[in-house]
Amino acid sequence: MHPLHKPHSPNALASTPCNQRKPSPAPHPVTLMPHVRNVLYIMCDQLRRDYLSCYGHAHLHTPNIDRLAASGVRFSRAYTQGTICGPSRMSAYTGRYVSSHQVAWNAVPLPLEELTIGDYLRPHGIRTALVGKTHATPNLDALQRLDIDPDSAQAQPLNEVGFEAYLRHDGIFPDSPLFADKRESASYTHYLREQGYAGSNPWHEWANAAAGEAGEVLSGWHMRNAHLPARVAEAHSETVYTTDRAIDFIHEQGEQPWCLHLSYIKPHWPYIAPAPYHALYGVDQVQAPIRAKPGQASDHPVYQAFRQHQESVNFSRDEVRLRVIPTYMGLIKQVDDQLGRLFDVLQSNGRWDDTLIVFTSDHGDFLGDHHLGEKEFLLEPAVGIPLIVRDPRAAADISRGTTDRRLVETIDALPTFLEALGLPSAEHRLEGRSLIPLLHGVETDWRRYAIAEYDYAFQAPARERLAQPIDRCRMTMVRSERWKYLAYDGFRAQLFDLENDPQELHDLGADPAYTQVREMHQGYLFEWLRGLKRRTTISHTEIDLRGQQFRYGEPEAEKVVQIGVW
Amino acid sequence: MHPLHKPHSPNALASTPCNQRKPSPAPHPVTLMPHVRNVLYIMCDQLRRDYLSCYGHAHLHTPNIDRLAASGVRFSRAYTQGTICGPSRMSAYTGRYVSSHQVAWNAVPLPLEELTIGDYLRPHGIRTALVGKTHATPNLDALQRLDIDPDSAQAQPLNEVGFEAYLRHDGIFPDSPLFADKRESASYTHYLREQGYAGSNPWHEWANAAAGEAGEVLSGWHMRNAHLPARVAEAHSETVYTTDRAIDFIHEQGEQPWCLHLSYIKPHWPYIAPAPYHALYGVDQVQAPIRAKPGQASDHPVYQAFRQHQESVNFSRDEVRLRVIPTYMGLIKQVDDQLGRLFDVLQSNGRWDDTLIVFTSDHGDFLGDHHLGEKEFLLEPAVGIPLIVRDPRAAADISRGTTDRRLVETIDALPTFLEALGLPSAEHRLEGRSLIPLLHGVETDWRRYAIAEYDYAFQAPARERLAQPIDRCRMTMVRSERWKYLAYDGFRAQLFDLENDPQELHDLGADPAYTQVREMHQGYLFEWLRGLKRRTTISHTEIDLRGQQFRYGEPEAEKVVQIGVW
Repeated sequence: MHPLHKPHSPNALASTPCNQRKPSPAPHPVTLMPHVRNVLYIMCDQLRRDYLSCYGHAHLHTPNIDRLAASGVRFSRAYTQGTICGPSRMSAYTGRYVSSHQVAWNAVPLPLEELTIGDYLRPHGIRTALVGKTHATPNLDALQRLDIDPDSAQAQPLNEVGFEAYLRHDGIFPDSPLFADKRESASYTHYLREQGYAGSNPWHEWANAAAGEAGEVLSGWHMRNAHLPARVAEAHSETVYTTDRAIDFIHEQGEQPWCLHLSYIKPHWPYIAPAPYHALYGVDQVQAPIRAKPGQASDHPVYQAFRQHQESVNFSRDEVRLRVIPTYMGLIKQVDDQLGRLFDVLQSNGRWDDTLIVFTSDHGDFLGDHHLGEKEFLLEPAVGIPLIVRDPRAAADISRGTTDRRLVETIDALPTFLEALGLPSAEHRLEGRSLIPLLHGVETDWRRYAIAEYDYAFQAPARERLAQPIDRCRMTMVRSERWKYLAYDGFRAQLFDLENDPQELHDLGADPAYTQVREMHQGYLFEWLRGLKRRTTISHTEIDLRGQQFRYGEPEAEKVVQIGVW
Repeated sequence: MHPLHKPHSPNALASTPCNQRKPSPAPHPVTLMPHVRNVLYIMCDQLRRDYLSCYGHAHLHTPNIDRLAASGVRFSRAYTQGTICGPSRMSAYTGRYVSSHQVAWNAVPLPLEELTIGDYLRPHGIRTALVGKTHATPNLDALQRLDIDPDSAQAQPLNEVGFEAYLRHDGIFPDSPLFADKRESASYTHYLREQGYAGSNPWHEWANAAAGEAGEVLSGWHMRNAHLPARVAEAHSETVYTTDRAIDFIHEQGEQPWCLHLSYIKPHWPYIAPAPYHALYGVDQVQAPIRAKPGQASDHPVYQAFRQHQESVNFSRDEVRLRVIPTYMGLIKQVDDQLGRLFDVLQSNGRWDDTLIVFTSDHGDFLGDHHLGEKEFLLEPAVGIPLIVRDPRAAADISRGTTDRRLVETIDALPTFLEALGLPSAEHRLEGRSLIPLLHGVETDWRRYAIAEYDYAFQAPARERLAQPIDRCRMTMVRSERWKYLAYDGFRAQLFDLENDPQELHDLGADPAYTQVREMHQGYLFEWLRGLKRRTTISHTEIDLRGQQFRYGEPEAEKVVQIGVW
């Protein structure tokens, strides 16, 4: 029997750490519809919200992602909770804000007790696998203290943040001796050799390299080579390789329930694409940069410090943008083509009709906007992400093809999976909210603001330029219906009016006319900090049962608790 | 070789989870003094700050505790972070606020990754043992998920929150069938039988019972029996039994370094004492209750709800106070006599000269003050605790016998132990501050306010009377130099002027004249929430090393990180 058919059976509950279910907050007719059987959670890396045709890009056509949006809901104001991979992904996997799961930067270990997607689904018989990137870092200190061998079977799901690593593909490692072991342990390294790409580091020498005019190898790490085709055939490139493994998994699983996290490393740098994707777009199809007029950019010290970063300085040069962005677009186009292959498989084998599909990104890429590169700042090009959700059930027909402008967050994915699968929630831990009521057109109060966080303690140049101590380098975004408020340790806040200044070109953070608006958002920040879940080892149901012991005077209770009895 | 002689050796560091040391915040001459060898951390349960003669009690003389104060420092404004046992003790053992360690109430499991005293000391060769109470609760859900047998050796230190349980003595269990196994597994149960106290539950029938006029057994759970002597001989009572085990441990340990947590269950209820302590004090030695004049008590809904608790109603009756308080005083007197025994041992075997001694309590007891019983409210009788610290080193001579009025907290104990022992600190986790600079007369900026928290979600009567959801029952105290501000979920704050109203009889929380004072303290609350340590899986030193990778342009670094290279 399908385990999902009896999600509330005592056995199922006893085997899961989140075994107290409260009724869904929204009273929508969940009883009228079956639960979905599978979840396909697709994530791109460093894909900007506005680089998809369904999100309005003028030249980059992504018909397959658009097909998903046309049969699902496109969220036009979705935000990541972290602006770089590790923090953002751990929020996706735990359903909790960065300040709660504590992974403030890349390669920071997730506390072992943070429950992830696999912890919630696996006890109910749902195989929960990874194909692609997670940026998970083993928590070696905790394993050592708990006397758990990091290489043991016991440690594996912990090291993979709860996923079965069907394919772990975190992207190319720096070409440094420090990473030799990791490169050799990466399956893509061996796959390339099997395809005839020889060498000690074929990933770097073929997939991440182009050929110079004299046949010399030009590194894909250097953006000046972004216009050249990679030395790897498209059929053997990372995006195709990842998609192949996802299709293998889905075929292998057959009719058994699954949750697959298909996590593409692209269009994340290195910015180099295999033919023909390296040449699909030209400089005339590169959107103009979003920049304040000369002399009108914010004078905020943190923003100014980030403008000094190497990637910001380089991306401020037109020759860099014009060489990199067409390739960035080509890498996205390749992902869209591969998703077309995948969606055809799902439609042919019936999975399209019983699988909840989510398409999103972990964060964006400034690409020179605001004279910034990379994504370590809380403006829209970095924190704005695409989010498309397709619920195959009839109850979702009401919303198909629509755009939802409500403020949604990366942490909403896991609660959405749980409700769609008919599994118990865990309101004492989960900080995100299920999107199912939104997909089913059910009236529900929604959050008034979205939160994102970044901690530049890990970047010595900015921290030292700003002379901030290591525990005072936090930036926090409070994005409300109209405003974006950016709070900083030790510096004034920034404020942007997204209704009248959607490009965030006018910093109102020092304008006395907006004191009340800033105070209101400071109040939201307090409310959010106060509301972080800090009672994660006991469920609300357990607390309620415990409380009953204090019903003084009731004979049964008095037998247990005899405090203050005369 | 004594491991403390090389606390910075690579091996010592590799073996400890807190292996990055930063210089002490205060530049005092630590190099001029040896480190202490041992730590004796004495804690009473439910001992009010003002029930010791060195803290001003008019009738209760505690010469042995006073002896410690005379040769150490008495902190006159020490606060617990939680007002009941579990939360307060987990703050003591982790050096972190309740909102950080998450043990919001009794019997809530501590997250396995919260490091405790033993985790910091044991890797340096210091045997860290418990004699008495911790109120620790095994984290069974986490152990199950990590596939650790709760009964295994691997789990034991986790189940005992890092202590070696030389004697675990959490106090009598309720006389309910639910607790039969726990009663039978308690060593004191068997000790009593060995001394000839027969029965299935000798703890209840002898130690927690008195004899009626007709020889019938009267339960110590009933406060009406508090004036009668316990049926157990003083030599076999809990306080003597606990002290005996502590002396055994110290003798057993000889010259080897140790940290002993001597944790008396008394004067915690049941309020019943062995002869002669049941009759040492009379009703004329009971201090008058601290209560607002009729009609002048605060109308705050949460305060009013707590006044309805059974123990509050009973302790509001004079006959209850006059019967219970003399026995409460006798139980404290017995602890003082036993500490006299223990201190004599330390002075005879040399430990008095190489041991840091801390005496404190986990929280107080209202005893009818403010028409409240127990300790679940954030007024002085509950949150005010005694704290006496004796550092045997010459550098502390400057402060011996003095009183320090600075705002200190229970979470300061662990950082104090680490500095006194010369061990690495862990500023990325520890939220308390070392008291050593205060003991050594070293100039240092000190905290501006102390924090305490209570969560009444676990008490159904108050929660339901106030109609608050289970995650909106928090009370937070911000106690500054002059003021006490009490913030509530869903209700107005309370405010007391401790300079002009030390008894907290006049609630200024609704007085428009104090709006700015309340706003200032709301600002402190925000600052505190923002400052909670949320990056506990990576040290500041590791972050700093990581940051160095981003020194763009430095050849060695560039080999590792090649982001945004043109």
